[in-house]
Amino acid sequence: MPIYNAPTKDLQFVLHDLLKVSEQDIAGYEDLDRDFTGAVLEEAGKVATAVLHPLNVVGDKEGCVLENGVVRTPKGFKAAFEQMKEGGWTAMDCDPEYGGQGLPYVMNSAAMEPFVSANMAFNMYQGLTHGAYSAIHAHGTDEQKQKFLPKMVSCEWTGTMNLTEPHCGTDLGLMRTKAAPQADGSYKITGQKIFISAGDHDLADNIIHLVLAKIEGGPEGIKGVSLFIVPKIIVNDDGSLGDRNAVSVGSIEEKMGIHGNSTCVMNYDGATGYLLGTEHKGMRAMFTMMNEARIGVGLQGYAQAESAYQNAVAYANDRLQGRAVTGAENPDGPADPLIVHPDIRRNLMDQKSFVEGARAFTFWGANLIDRAHRNGDKDADGLISLLTPVIKGFQTDKGFEYAVAAQQVYGGHGYIEEWGMSQYARDARIAMIYEGANGVQALDLVGRKLAQDGGKHVMAFFEMIKTFIKENEGNEALKADFLDPLKAASKDLQAAGMYFMQNGMKNPNHALAGSYDFMHMMGHVCFGLMWAKMAKAAMEALEGGASDTAFYETKIATGRYYMARQLPATTMHLARINTGADTVMALDAANF
Amino acid sequence: MPIYNAPTKDLQFVLHDLLKVSEQDIAGYEDLDRDFTGAVLEEAGKVATAVLHPLNVVGDKEGCVLENGVVRTPKGFKAAFEQMKEGGWTAMDCDPEYGGQGLPYVMNSAAMEPFVSANMAFNMYQGLTHGAYSAIHAHGTDEQKQKFLPKMVSCEWTGTMNLTEPHCGTDLGLMRTKAAPQADGSYKITGQKIFISAGDHDLADNIIHLVLAKIEGGPEGIKGVSLFIVPKIIVNDDGSLGDRNAVSVGSIEEKMGIHGNSTCVMNYDGATGYLLGTEHKGMRAMFTMMNEARIGVGLQGYAQAESAYQNAVAYANDRLQGRAVTGAENPDGPADPLIVHPDIRRNLMDQKSFVEGARAFTFWGANLIDRAHRNGDKDADGLISLLTPVIKGFQTDKGFEYAVAAQQVYGGHGYIEEWGMSQYARDARIAMIYEGANGVQALDLVGRKLAQDGGKHVMAFFEMIKTFIKENEGNEALKADFLDPLKAASKDLQAAGMYFMQNGMKNPNHALAGSYDFMHMMGHVCFGLMWAKMAKAAMEALEGGASDTAFYETKIATGRYYMARQLPATTMHLARINTGADTVMALDAANF
Repeated sequence: MPIYNAPTKDLQFVLHDLLKVSEQDIAGYEDLDRDFTGAVLEEAGKVATAVLHPLNVVGDKEGCVLENGVVRTPKGFKAAFEQMKEGGWTAMDCDPEYGGQGLPYVMNSAAMEPFVSANMAFNMYQGLTHGAYSAIHAHGTDEQKQKFLPKMVSCEWTGTMNLTEPHCGTDLGLMRTKAAPQADGSYKITGQKIFISAGDHDLADNIIHLVLAKIEGGPEGIKGVSLFIVPKIIVNDDGSLGDRNAVSVGSIEEKMGIHGNSTCVMNYDGATGYLLGTEHKGMRAMFTMMNEARIGVGLQGYAQAESAYQNAVAYANDRLQGRAVTGAENPDGPADPLIVHPDIRRNLMDQKSFVEGARAFTFWGANLIDRAHRNGDKDADGLISLLTPVIKGFQTDKGFEYAVAAQQVYGGHGYIEEWGMSQYARDARIAMIYEGANGVQALDLVGRKLAQDGGKHVMAFFEMIKTFIKENEGNEALKADFLDPLKAASKDLQAAGMYFMQNGMKNPNHALAGSYDFMHMMGHVCFGLMWAKMAKAAMEALEGGASDTAFYETKIATGRYYMARQLPATTMHLARINTGADTVMALDAANF
Repeated sequence: MPIYNAPTKDLQFVLHDLLKVSEQDIAGYEDLDRDFTGAVLEEAGKVATAVLHPLNVVGDKEGCVLENGVVRTPKGFKAAFEQMKEGGWTAMDCDPEYGGQGLPYVMNSAAMEPFVSANMAFNMYQGLTHGAYSAIHAHGTDEQKQKFLPKMVSCEWTGTMNLTEPHCGTDLGLMRTKAAPQADGSYKITGQKIFISAGDHDLADNIIHLVLAKIEGGPEGIKGVSLFIVPKIIVNDDGSLGDRNAVSVGSIEEKMGIHGNSTCVMNYDGATGYLLGTEHKGMRAMFTMMNEARIGVGLQGYAQAESAYQNAVAYANDRLQGRAVTGAENPDGPADPLIVHPDIRRNLMDQKSFVEGARAFTFWGANLIDRAHRNGDKDADGLISLLTPVIKGFQTDKGFEYAVAAQQVYGGHGYIEEWGMSQYARDARIAMIYEGANGVQALDLVGRKLAQDGGKHVMAFFEMIKTFIKENEGNEALKADFLDPLKAASKDLQAAGMYFMQNGMKNPNHALAGSYDFMHMMGHVCFGLMWAKMAKAAMEALEGGASDTAFYETKIATGRYYMARQLPATTMHLARINTGADTVMALDAANF
């Protein structure tokens, strides 16, 4: 049986030592003092460990079952979902006008992490609802908001996102689902959607589907796509539940992982839908959900690696195998624990330095979102827009890689389902795919975000790193181990950007052939910045007389590892990028 | 339903254009002309596609079932196994004295690849038998050989390897299985073994288990381990089957993949066993099986990637999504096929250049084994001993990585079991673990093989590369694209070796902390050498007027991709290695 304990101390470190949230001039942040966030995170951690984590294996084994048109979730999910609702965990950062607690997004992210680590498939029911909530909140009429949001905030009703169809996922302009306008202002929605997470289940009284469809007679392609609210059960004007809508589950997909979440084929057969936002502007409205969802998926990536890492550490300390090459460390035992071996440590340090870097980067990003939304800060908005594909793409690639690495620590036992390590890898795998496959994230980053607003945000990004290095260059403790590698990595990234500028104009393939490498490179530079900032914060805490010296010293040592062992990857990515598109595009399609 | 077609043309290319097998002065190679090998491989490909491939998904879905102490394999496995036996595919490189065909190992490897690609789990029944055959052939008495080998060559009886116990895998000195000497010279074996692939099944009349155990009163630890032949059913002196031995299946493990192969917990309760080889020298005898098995596992790694790649290419050509950034390539269709997009090509070229490099490296290694065994060439033996952990460790890491990459081409469909891409990833995952987890391969390489025979073999390895570069430096077509990158990568590898020499003496952790990076680095250098040799061979074929110009030109272009896009990884690995053990070993175990 795998273990999971919320890393409350590290969550607090990121919020307070790194981000110093309570000192930030953002509405709502004044409440985020150490005691308050500590109490919330402590409680979230307890729920994660006691309620959600034991159901993780259950969800994987049982999966969801479609019986007589109704989806049944695994045993225990319903009771746990009730506990989440009662505890108010579904409503943390939602608008108080609709029953939410109005907490900042950064606080929501920190509290969510333990839930996602403990049971990713379970947490998706709430996560999708939150995305649908955000879209309605941003684009709905007052009437729509009053009608749907309070029940979605409380998760009495859950939500979904319906984009993909059998023949199109990324290229939604090809979609075939139709919306026929009705005399009463509603629409009849007809078509099939696939891969609908939480598409149906027995956890809520109603499910509010957000569905992309084309209004008949509208523009061709992506410009004719609109977004609709399609409730599973029609909601009467008085808020009571009315008739069953013409929405049904075609089947449940058998997946590699996240078996606890029902991934449905949804059939809309003239279902009643209500336009959300402006007609033919459905993609814009959908992106409100997608950007938030992408950061959430980036969190899933490292949250699975965190769980897997905790188990790998426990196993490495427990399993006796071989002797330390420098002399027995457990001389009274039959062998030393795995953790004495340098290559096991190399593996564990890779995992640890990734997870902690990702946590910092994700919350730092959430802080930018708060700054953008609560303070109307356009620069913060531009920066998080630039970095969203990096948070999603880099962190889910690496999250999967390190879930696999954690599995490897177990040797043969890692391959046996009973030990639970396979599930972390199988569950983490989806995060690289959904909400835009990572290749699409790389395309978004290089093909769109770099040049956004005349390249203003990427220039601000480099300026931010330069400023940080300049401000701290007198700090000898930081210089060699942190600032110098960060400078070198940032220089590599700039050189890659320069290559794209100089060559991408002539032939855009020269830029796009390097997009994936660039996304990873930028991830490393962002993590390098985070680690330099975290090391600085930890040094300051130690200088300030912090009592938990082992924690802060470990933080600095882990950062040193990342800078020494991970950051050199930028040289490789740059070398690849600099070879351009010639070898990538050389073959005729027939010769693959 | 996934596809699979044997890459016969490329198998032939490696045997004849690259290795020029029929020109080599090795006994048995004189028969390996193009027509003969072509006919064999053509037939192997047919069997793989028609018989084994359709059972791959069946095996994954059904798995093996333990009923009343007997393991039942998935539907169709038994009939297919009969076909393999009848076709003589189980006996290709076995000793003619025991019914084998006596073909070289390189030919066996080439014919095996399609079987492994088509159905890895199925092929393991035969693969394990071959390993057990080799151990008995090398270490058995004449009587043992006469008694067991003919039936194992024909696969009427299959074989297994029993090493791992619940509390020990890598560190076999801890094993508890006991062997009690009997008056008649046999032993009573008592203990439990786990992870026994093909441990029981319904494909054969008998199963010959090779079991490591400690003879009572022998030396402590690994020096007291002996190897025993323990038949499932006792074989009478006249060769007929006698009583059931005291061997039973405890359970079948539920695994992440290779469901078609029965992975058993085996219980030995005073089972009759016969010493194989010398007492207390069981590890030496077992290594006869393990070295062969490790090369076979390296083949599994890329063979799964090959299958996954074939499907990814088909999907990328079929799936219409988006438009080429340089202008529509399928203007009459609703969208262009995925394969027009640079990042999809980057992904497919990664896969293709890996698989073809791995095929060349594996057969080149098999050729060294033939040279060692058939010509008694000690240098070839030393070189393949050095490279075995690289073939196993690098190729299985990358094989899994690219099976995952192929899955990624499918987007959401890659995560759905129905499409079959998940199985390739799940099946490929085991190859990184069994026959010595890849961290153990790295330890073997850096901790043992580099220094073997005074470092003679690694020096010969570098000399071989240097000589190749020198011999071809006048070849302008090779120089910039192939020889220069090979030279640079080889220099990086030498620098890493130098770092180990200079620092590993003081503190062996400085070497072992870099062992995994070194293994990957050496893999890249070996692949770089293969690609340079293949490019040269392809250029010569074109100059010689070969008619299939597209094939040879594609080969050269694929090689250029590898050299440009993959070989730069050596710089990153060197940078990591050069940071030594300090950051790796910095933390106390309690602070992870």
